[in-house]
Amino acid sequence: MKYGVVAFPSKKLQDLANSYRKRYDPHYSLITPHMTVKGVFEASDEEIETLSTQIGEVVKRHKPFSLQTSRVSSFSPVTNAIYFKVEPTPELLELHKDLHSDVLGAEAEYAFVPHITIAQKMASGEHDDIFGQLKMVGVDHEEIIDRLHLLYQLEDGSWTVYETFRLSGAGE
Amino acid sequence: MKYGVVAFPSKKLQDLANSYRKRYDPHYSLITPHMTVKGVFEASDEEIETLSTQIGEVVKRHKPFSLQTSRVSSFSPVTNAIYFKVEPTPELLELHKDLHSDVLGAEAEYAFVPHITIAQKMASGEHDDIFGQLKMVGVDHEEIIDRLHLLYQLEDGSWTVYETFRLSGAGE
Repeated sequence: MKYGVVAFPSKKLQDLANSYRKRYDPHYSLITPHMTVKGVFEASDEEIETLSTQIGEVVKRHKPFSLQTSRVSSFSPVTNAIYFKVEPTPELLELHKDLHSDVLGAEAEYAFVPHITIAQKMASGEHDDIFGQLKMVGVDHEEIIDRLHLLYQLEDGSWTVYETFRLSGAGE
Repeated sequence: MKYGVVAFPSKKLQDLANSYRKRYDPHYSLITPHMTVKGVFEASDEEIETLSTQIGEVVKRHKPFSLQTSRVSSFSPVTNAIYFKVEPTPELLELHKDLHSDVLGAEAEYAFVPHITIAQKMASGEHDDIFGQLKMVGVDHEEIIDRLHLLYQLEDGSWTVYETFRLSGAGE
């Protein structure tokens, strides 16, 4: 089964993201707006119990962090995806690193660019048009994220939450 | 903000439910297949912290329970909703009752008929056709539910998980 770990921002930021996603993101109906902190990985029913415990251990060592967005950016030309750029604060980078260490799968495949996708899978022309409009829009927002969620994917591509982990900063 | 408490069944049962929902349920894209154990309620940002703690306290007193489905049923003529009927076991009824007692909102508004909706909001003729086909289908399934989720609703009607509660049976 496919799993991933995300943060869901507040209703306010999710509603804003959805105002774009409903038009520009074919994944709109598969998952609510989110910031991925551990991308898709495969695990069996047996493995996930252990992994879930280990992810929980990592998460609870970290404190709630500030999620700050300032502007709309794009992954083009790599992929035609437009997103709310999330500030890569030291706290967030450290959390991401810890979720990709040891048993949790060594290093991440790509450099971590924290983001909330609002548009994707567009033709290049459409991407350029939409990005041209959106990059003028400021997304000046800051909030505290105090929990992460482990999700699994259904056959239709949609995601269901399996477990919630609090960032309690409890240490070891 | 609007909140609710649900159990998400296993991927297997969710995939089966979705095979019907994608055709017959306009809420298909708003939430993955689920059994509601505490229907929609309103709470402010301040209230939900307290309520979430209280719901967690109730849930953890209960043990994981067996979710058993056997057949497809319908709420018609009250509403044209078709669902996998979930056995109202004593454990499940007790859990539901505890989630509607004291501060958690007195008695439930309706008798609790545990179910997983697979079709709704159809015209009567369509309902009768589809139910006529589906009521012949057995849904002979049993699984253990070991967690519930507290969700909130976004402006577009979709649901995001806020917290996960384990049915640990830890007692008080």
